Amino acid sequence: MAKIKAGVLGATGAVGQRFIEGLKEHPWFELTSLAASERSAGKKYSEAARWRLESELPADIAEMTVVNVDPKEVDADIVFSALPSDEAKTAEPAFAAAGCAVASNTSSYRMVADVPLLIPECNHEHLDIIKIQQEKRGWENGGYLTTNPNCTTVMFTLPLKPLMKFGIQSVHVASMQAVSGAGYEGVPSMAILGNVIPYIGGEEEKVETEPQKILGTFDGEKIINADFAVTASCHRVPVMDGHTEAVWVTMRDNPTPAEVRQAMLDFDPKLGDLPTSPKKALIVKDEADRPQPRLDRNRGNGMSVSVGRIRSGIRFVCMGHNTVRGAAGASILNAELLVKKGLL
Amino acid sequence: MAKIKAGVLGATGAVGQRFIEGLKEHPWFELTSLAASERSAGKKYSEAARWRLESELPADIAEMTVVNVDPKEVDADIVFSALPSDEAKTAEPAFAAAGCAVASNTSSYRMVADVPLLIPECNHEHLDIIKIQQEKRGWENGGYLTTNPNCTTVMFTLPLKPLMKFGIQSVHVASMQAVSGAGYEGVPSMAILGNVIPYIGGEEEKVETEPQKILGTFDGEKIINADFAVTASCHRVPVMDGHTEAVWVTMRDNPTPAEVRQAMLDFDPKLGDLPTSPKKALIVKDEADRPQPRLDRNRGNGMSVSVGRIRSGIRFVCMGHNTVRGAAGASILNAELLVKKGLL
Amino acid sequence: MAKIKAGVLGATGAVGQRFIEGLKEHPWFELTSLAASERSAGKKYSEAARWRLESELPADIAEMTVVNVDPKEVDADIVFSALPSDEAKTAEPAFAAAGCAVASNTSSYRMVADVPLLIPECNHEHLDIIKIQQEKRGWENGGYLTTNPNCTTVMFTLPLKPLMKFGIQSVHVASMQAVSGAGYEGVPSMAILGNVIPYIGGEEEKVETEPQKILGTFDGEKIINADFAVTASCHRVPVMDGHTEAVWVTMRDNPTPAEVRQAMLDFDPKLGDLPTSPKKALIVKDEADRPQPRLDRNRGNGMSVSVGRIRSGIRFVCMGHNTVRGAAGASILNAELLVKKGLL
Amino acid sequence: MAKIKAGVLGATGAVGQRFIEGLKEHPWFELTSLAASERSAGKKYSEAARWRLESELPADIAEMTVVNVDPKEVDADIVFSALPSDEAKTAEPAFAAAGCAVASNTSSYRMVADVPLLIPECNHEHLDIIKIQQEKRGWENGGYLTTNPNCTTVMFTLPLKPLMKFGIQSVHVASMQAVSGAGYEGVPSMAILGNVIPYIGGEEEKVETEPQKILGTFDGEKIINADFAVTASCHRVPVMDGHTEAVWVTMRDNPTPAEVRQAMLDFDPKLGDLPTSPKKALIVKDEADRPQPRLDRNRGNGMSVSVGRIRSGIRFVCMGHNTVRGAAGASILNAELLVKKGLL
Repeated sequence: MAKIKAGVLGATGAVGQRFIEGLKEHPWFELTSLAASERSAGKKYSEAARWRLESELPADIAEMTVVNVDPKEVDADIVFSALPSDEAKTAEPAFAAAGCAVASNTSSYRMVADVPLLIPECNHEHLDIIKIQQEKRGWENGGYLTTNPNCTTVMFTLPLKPLMKFGIQSVHVASMQAVSGAGYEGVPSMAILGNVIPYIGGEEEKVETEPQKILGTFDGEKIINADFAVTASCHRVPVMDGHTEAVWVTMRDNPTPAEVRQAMLDFDPKLGDLPTSPKKALIVKDEADRPQPRLDRNRGNGMSVSVGRIRSGIRFVCMGHNTVRGAAGASILNAELLVKKGLL
Repeated sequence: MAKIKAGVLGATGAVGQRFIEGLKEHPWFELTSLAASERSAGKKYSEAARWRLESELPADIAEMTVVNVDPKEVDADIVFSALPSDEAKTAEPAFAAAGCAVASNTSSYRMVADVPLLIPECNHEHLDIIKIQQEKRGWENGGYLTTNPNCTTVMFTLPLKPLMKFGIQSVHVASMQAVSGAGYEGVPSMAILGNVIPYIGGEEEKVETEPQKILGTFDGEKIINADFAVTASCHRVPVMDGHTEAVWVTMRDNPTPAEVRQAMLDFDPKLGDLPTSPKKALIVKDEADRPQPRLDRNRGNGMSVSVGRIRSGIRFVCMGHNTVRGAAGASILNAELLVKKGLL
Repeated sequence: MAKIKAGVLGATGAVGQRFIEGLKEHPWFELTSLAASERSAGKKYSEAARWRLESELPADIAEMTVVNVDPKEVDADIVFSALPSDEAKTAEPAFAAAGCAVASNTSSYRMVADVPLLIPECNHEHLDIIKIQQEKRGWENGGYLTTNPNCTTVMFTLPLKPLMKFGIQSVHVASMQAVSGAGYEGVPSMAILGNVIPYIGGEEEKVETEPQKILGTFDGEKIINADFAVTASCHRVPVMDGHTEAVWVTMRDNPTPAEVRQAMLDFDPKLGDLPTSPKKALIVKDEADRPQPRLDRNRGNGMSVSVGRIRSGIRFVCMGHNTVRGAAGASILNAELLVKKGLL
Repeated sequence: MAKIKAGVLGATGAVGQRFIEGLKEHPWFELTSLAASERSAGKKYSEAARWRLESELPADIAEMTVVNVDPKEVDADIVFSALPSDEAKTAEPAFAAAGCAVASNTSSYRMVADVPLLIPECNHEHLDIIKIQQEKRGWENGGYLTTNPNCTTVMFTLPLKPLMKFGIQSVHVASMQAVSGAGYEGVPSMAILGNVIPYIGGEEEKVETEPQKILGTFDGEKIINADFAVTASCHRVPVMDGHTEAVWVTMRDNPTPAEVRQAMLDFDPKLGDLPTSPKKALIVKDEADRPQPRLDRNRGNGMSVSVGRIRSGIRFVCMGHNTVRGAAGASILNAELLVKKGLL
């Protein structure tokens, strides 16, 4: 089987680099196009971008010429978008209109009614809205938009999925977020060394609205949000990668901690075997002091969410890799789902 | 006026050193006795202890001879206790029986019915229980026990005080605690560098029970706990000093964030002018990203609690210096209150 | 005595804020003018700058209107310059030509032959070159340029001063520098958390040339550089404030460690009593594991350099506060010297 | 081929865990015995040790019963020793006398004349001294002692090897060492967060004497040390793993930086294909700001040393993983060499 041609929009930034890392040896996708801002276009990738990851930049990618974020210059069946949200606003629909599948990590279209906001293990059936999206927007070349959630949202929404059967009524979440979530230049060291910053612009608004859409139901025409409230307090801590979250969930059925733990252990998203889906999407840790970002963020190649300290309340702590499961890896898993569903 | 003779129990440890720092130039107290374990007793303080604070160890204190934790060896009107809780269990009553006032930072007697658990700005009237304590225990030499709260408790209980009038019903608190709270050897660097540890042994139990006693009322015979539930999730972060806490408070009267902010601004504990009581016990920060431990922990010489991000929910973030307001400084403020009330 | 009017050039940046902090309650200087780039000029200081220090921004300074970096807009007898070096290149001489004393923290004029590069404890006699500077440049209004060294230079050059008598032949220095040396946005947290960066652009060149000028002699016409070689390796470490340096010094007389220690203990710069000169410019630490930035950087209000581990080689470790003794505090001490010498 | 039976002495500690990690899927060795102190002996490994590594503890190893550090209880052809140096002093020869090969990471026997101190890429020919060792000590069952260097020594001694041809005369090294080098409880977070500690007990003595033995020559009877002096300054920094070192080398032939770089690039230890020998023992980085511990410590699965900033002086910066190349990985590579040389 020929590989599917994949492009990255915003290829030089922190998430763009994670996209390259995740796609460079992917069994289904072939990285054919790297697009970035005018400043970078025309340059070799190794000149346009300063590679910031521990892995080595592959030599063939270093040599690729960066192109503009323009469907005419990008040769791809699917584009992965790490664009700033204002640029994504116009660029992503342009790619969809030109016949491209768009797997976006940007917030611009997440909450738009006809765009699926996906965690494959939670709501793959929302993909059926794509047909409605294409009709409504008059996209006749097969292009469409898909999105993945905010990096803080995904870590607690995934463990909420198996708790839906208990009747979730309300959720409180306090996050302790890694600096990599803000991009390479996002958090100055003078701001965060030995410190906590109790504010992340725009974060709480996303965290408080995205889960209800993700855990909502598609009625054949639209997504009906799940009916519970989320209230969040978001904080930055001196951690490189891995968002840790303290979560309280009130549920109609008042399950015991043991019942909650069992529901998480039993959680089987029945996704089948996608190349990057982890053996266990949810890992339940029984040690008193886990999960911890340094020890647990790379479980399932960074695609597992680890949950621990399930106790009365119901309270628990969850943690996952914010730039893998919470960003580039999420879009790539979405794309694999698109292939499996025959949408690509 | 002659100074009051003060001793420190557990003088060589981290909190003991903070006691020395807080007492060495105190206008009312004179440091007359340093007591520690057998291993240290008989040695010069500078040989028994490794001084860990940024301030210099005063030369006269360096020369003092450490004595045993024994009322016969300690020459003091009041002792400040930083003993491990099992040792405190027997040693503190022995000092009280011998006629000594005890201001303890240890958890052993905090929740015992006849022992006041004090935040002077919140419940100084609880001191009246001392008479009952002395009668019940048969202490006839004027000795008694007082305690201050756990370092995490005090940071959010102080801001709850002015909210009592709105009818507090329940509290959720997620803490991000500094490493100094665990003592000098408490948290290995390999455990916490670039990491979050979502568990602190015994902490949540204290945090969930102490506030109701502190904010309770003394009916002339006993303290009647305030009637609300606290549920906590406690985490260690790579911060040296300063506990940051995200707090949710449900209240009967459903006040607006502006009303809550105003109540905090108006909070006047009417403590009068104690030597270490800060000009403002509660500081309200209106910047979006405050309070932060690195920038705000030393407000009021480490005795103020800073509150910010008061928003619907009601949610807010509070922060204070855990080894000053949360430990040694709290006991010293208690002692000043004892003097003012004529109990010393 | 009326206070001397002082302005700050580059008042909104990290060093500019340290200048404000050092001048706001200075006994000799009155802060009359805050100058910054066009973007800031015309705004209130509190709007133009985001205050980043632990101390509170004084209310009266918050209200001052920022002006342009232009001698016509700045009302001052002396200006303290924290300008970027390219701007300093033209702005500083313009202020000198207009009759202003300039105390610069910028590198632009440090190595220029007729400009003194000062550590008051080391070479205050170099100030006599100012007369030559004024003549040569035709500055007839009493203005002139003075500079202080790079923040890494000063920490090891000060302890070298008392060793000059042993005949210094060569110096090796390896620095472990704090992030604040690069300015607030200078070092992203993703670059330095749990990491060492073994390169600081342009730093080694400064460190290898400035000490010889500082420790040189003024022969009445020019400064004759001291005759030794410095070779440096500069590294950034995850420390907020305080540059630590490992130093090797080869000397003609081959002094023992005890002789070196004694020379440092005996070091008396005979500066007299300037408002910010520390009681001891050099502090010798005899503990095996000192100096340490966290514990020792604030000695002498940040103006002392601490030295320890003096051992055969001769090797030692020195450390000082890079944004106080190494930047703003250095310029202010220079200005105090100017007053004392009657140059202001 | 049947696998060789391997035991770990000191299996519960930090280096012991790295040994288990390195041996659990090794193609040549089979982990047959885990020995530790009396406190642990008799327990299941998962009960005796708290696993601290990011990798998962393999289930079969978790179930193994820990035995005493006693040749009678340990069933192995080779033992890897991570014992404290005082215990190693008696235990290691006991194992050798009992017929066991000993690959020790401990310092006890490194500088003993008849014990090889190995970096396989530098001095595998020193292994010939084993025969002399066995004769001298009367070990007739085939047992013997081998050692690997201190973790700081190996990082700069490996890059010195290809420079030997230029006539090394003297070496200065300033280290910036990771906390993991001190073991899990070794460095309290209160000691190192945002700090530098300019002292590591006993480290400089090792660093100043081991390289000359490693780079010495075996004359058929004894090892003749290389003739150059090393002078070291060792510092701890807030880094988890990876020792960074600034090195100055004076050489008789005065090579240019380009010649030094080429010698390092050309370095071919001709070790052949050992299971854990990295493709390149020395990696030369040409970027201005490399090597960095966070980005480069895992090169060659933690077995490569990265060198950069080769400049006049000759100065360079080198860096490697201190608990892999600098500890457990070094002993395992030694053991692979023993197999290849027919000694096992």
